[in-house]
Amino acid sequence: MILDGKKIKNDLLENFKEKIKTEKLYIKLAIILVGNNEASKIYIKNKEKACDYVGIKVEKYLLEENITENDLLKLIDKLNNDTNTTGIILQSPIPSHLDFDKCSNYIQASKDVDGFTKENIYKLYLGKKTILPCTVKGIIKLLEIYNIPIEGSNAVIVGRGNIVGHPLSLALLNKNATVTVAHSKTKNLKNITRNADILISATGKPHLIQKDYVKKDAVVIDVGVSRVNGKIVGDIDFREIVDIASFITPNPGGIGPMTVAMIIDNLIEMEERKRKVENKNINFAHDKNRQ
Amino acid sequence: MILDGKKIKNDLLENFKEKIKTEKLYIKLAIILVGNNEASKIYIKNKEKACDYVGIKVEKYLLEENITENDLLKLIDKLNNDTNTTGIILQSPIPSHLDFDKCSNYIQASKDVDGFTKENIYKLYLGKKTILPCTVKGIIKLLEIYNIPIEGSNAVIVGRGNIVGHPLSLALLNKNATVTVAHSKTKNLKNITRNADILISATGKPHLIQKDYVKKDAVVIDVGVSRVNGKIVGDIDFREIVDIASFITPNPGGIGPMTVAMIIDNLIEMEERKRKVENKNINFAHDKNRQ
Repeated sequence: MILDGKKIKNDLLENFKEKIKTEKLYIKLAIILVGNNEASKIYIKNKEKACDYVGIKVEKYLLEENITENDLLKLIDKLNNDTNTTGIILQSPIPSHLDFDKCSNYIQASKDVDGFTKENIYKLYLGKKTILPCTVKGIIKLLEIYNIPIEGSNAVIVGRGNIVGHPLSLALLNKNATVTVAHSKTKNLKNITRNADILISATGKPHLIQKDYVKKDAVVIDVGVSRVNGKIVGDIDFREIVDIASFITPNPGGIGPMTVAMIIDNLIEMEERKRKVENKNINFAHDKNRQ
Repeated sequence: MILDGKKIKNDLLENFKEKIKTEKLYIKLAIILVGNNEASKIYIKNKEKACDYVGIKVEKYLLEENITENDLLKLIDKLNNDTNTTGIILQSPIPSHLDFDKCSNYIQASKDVDGFTKENIYKLYLGKKTILPCTVKGIIKLLEIYNIPIEGSNAVIVGRGNIVGHPLSLALLNKNATVTVAHSKTKNLKNITRNADILISATGKPHLIQKDYVKKDAVVIDVGVSRVNGKIVGDIDFREIVDIASFITPNPGGIGPMTVAMIIDNLIEMEERKRKVENKNINFAHDKNRQ
């Protein structure tokens, strides 16, 4: 069965749109792009389109390639302190004279849409409620929507990057999967992946995962994105594996759309949390007035 | 072959003693104990004994069971600011009216002997140089001393606690092992553990790991500590497995002593780092004077 990320995304966006309208949520996303990376521009366009559709305001900050770290941090500081800004995305990659780790960690944890700050990763590590990185959340949401059990399953993740593989391993462990992380130094990769009930590949190596890498009836999720002769190719050899897997994501049309939907999901969660805090403060003020 | 943690610890302590003496390292460890936990007192005694032996000063702070969080934080603050204190250990567990996570994170990262603060865990997550939790470091050191290759091996960790299992999974991943984390929700545990080249159990379930859980010639490491009829019993059924494993830790006498040795190792590392920073500052001051 196909895990139809595109359709699920569209359904989710409808729900989000309705929710934002009826609950009168005012949400604003700030996106910071440094320089002129063409791929980044396409990613940002996709985010903008989804935000527009559901009624989230997007403010883009297009900064010069040679901006100083200090100026970038000043902008983030301003957005951290702006009560109208719900969330902030610092689009990666940024030019090499800027320290991405330092700059992205400058984003206040409660406005960290991507869930990559120290604060949020530490909570993820401890198994506490946190803002999940969007791709990680998209994978888990897709599994949940198709009623695929995570608890007690053998999940094998190929790739250990800080955007997907690594945080996903923590998130699936929190969901009580038995988690294996494989990578470029893994020996006999197919012996490892053949143990997977849920196999997730996030390496960017075109068609790394072949037919004989997959157990019958496994759930197979493709997060890889490569370009081969101008075409997007995933990590998974879809055509060879579609008949072996019980569930499989197409690529494109699988995890990509889910990631975009989860940006909106995170923003709504953040706005709701903000409202709760504000309401508490209002109630607290009322209580004080009553004393 | 037996992985003789006790012997290795003694050898290491000799080296540490020599190093501290010849390099004239002045190291002071502050240990904070809240309340009267008997097991904690034994652990602290072991740490003190090793420190005494190598020439590290230990200052114990024995606090009343009912101390306020504020007073505990004040003490940690004082120790953070004391230039003569090299490292701080807040002995767990602490009474339940105190938030261990909050209090232990109050320890300055550079004085965090246990390596459990947010700062140090985040570095471990990112694969950067950090202060490793002592048991984790003890396991890795033992493997390295016996020339057991970690890179490319299939490491299976049973248990995902924040003291051993969880940080160990990050550390072994950084060492390029293929890492699987199994736990109480894992189904068919023995099918998982039988894939291990290196099997580490840290659950505290007496003799959880039986003969049929272990592949021939695997390396088997026992971190579990339980008391059965007053005797210390590990996770591993040693007698049944000693002939199957290529290497195996006894318990007691395996990882326990290594953990104590790594406290000293961390303290020396911290003192050396401090000296480097101080020397830099002195050089910087000299440079300024020359201008």
